[in-house]
Amino acid sequence: MAMIGNVTRWPADAAGRLKEAALVLFAERGFDAVTVGDIAQAAGVTERTFFRYFADKREVLFADQGAYQAHFLDALARSEATAPMELVAAALHGGAEFFTDQRRPEAKVRRRVIESSPALRERESLKRAALAEALTAALIARGIPSVSASLAAESGSAAFSVALTGWLAAPDERAFADVLDDALGELRTLLG
Amino acid sequence: MAMIGNVTRWPADAAGRLKEAALVLFAERGFDAVTVGDIAQAAGVTERTFFRYFADKREVLFADQGAYQAHFLDALARSEATAPMELVAAALHGGAEFFTDQRRPEAKVRRRVIESSPALRERESLKRAALAEALTAALIARGIPSVSASLAAESGSAAFSVALTGWLAAPDERAFADVLDDALGELRTLLG
Repeated sequence: MAMIGNVTRWPADAAGRLKEAALVLFAERGFDAVTVGDIAQAAGVTERTFFRYFADKREVLFADQGAYQAHFLDALARSEATAPMELVAAALHGGAEFFTDQRRPEAKVRRRVIESSPALRERESLKRAALAEALTAALIARGIPSVSASLAAESGSAAFSVALTGWLAAPDERAFADVLDDALGELRTLLG
Repeated sequence: MAMIGNVTRWPADAAGRLKEAALVLFAERGFDAVTVGDIAQAAGVTERTFFRYFADKREVLFADQGAYQAHFLDALARSEATAPMELVAAALHGGAEFFTDQRRPEAKVRRRVIESSPALRERESLKRAALAEALTAALIARGIPSVSASLAAESGSAAFSVALTGWLAAPDERAFADVLDDALGELRTLLG
């Protein structure tokens, strides 16, 4: 577990152990060189158990997508704003809660693994597009016209993505929410 | 060829005939039901000829991607603007030249085919992401800092996508460039 900072706990649940073992092995040996059998063995379970939780070894890296997306949508639902970009900013700050300082070492390793493989980059790109679509749908459900909803969700999602890259690359330890505010401010400046 | 408006010409080159035949067959029978053999037969060539031009039947729908992307990048290269969003607007108006009124019927059929298949929607989403990345890289090469470059390219690309959907769905016959200007104006309003 040394790859992931000082995290020494070993998750009690099989899915958690599989996710952590996969990330460590991908980072150490490269994504293509690791088999499902390797991951299962490292997590102390059978391959059959692996496939009970994940469709393939790629999916292990994206298993948190549902919980991740819920952070954005729950925050949007709680917001009492009416302007599209204010609703989007509320959603993005909900998503920002996912990227705690504690999660940064693991997020850095995950990013490095994803960047190393075109197939993983594709999957990441599609998950990001799916999030923007979910935000667009949520805005439309709040009565925002579809053109405004789409533009607000897509440009906000771009700001989030830029902020995430900055947060992961930065040598300092700024909170993700602050980096996100900078990106949203820069977007306003560019379009002002 | 009745599916695609009143286009009655039949391209002289094999690749052009294959593209046109594929689009007509996909629209008539559904993407999943059409084989490479069907497309080759309809275009009057062999399967072997099909595979000389395209990797698979999905790729027929995305074969113009290089020429498409060049419209954006050439216009960006020609622009003498220095502000990131002005450079992006110039690039998008270059891309808009691809969507002539003459091309609208074919573009509508293509959109309908793509919307009908999750695999095609994924491919379209990835091509769009690749375009935004290419625009980001071109802006960085022009001296724009990477955060601004990425935000300008991504939000501009969102405006282009919204404009394209609007142009294809609209019952009227507005020029694409006008629909695009509306989308860029709306983006400025949202973020102003």
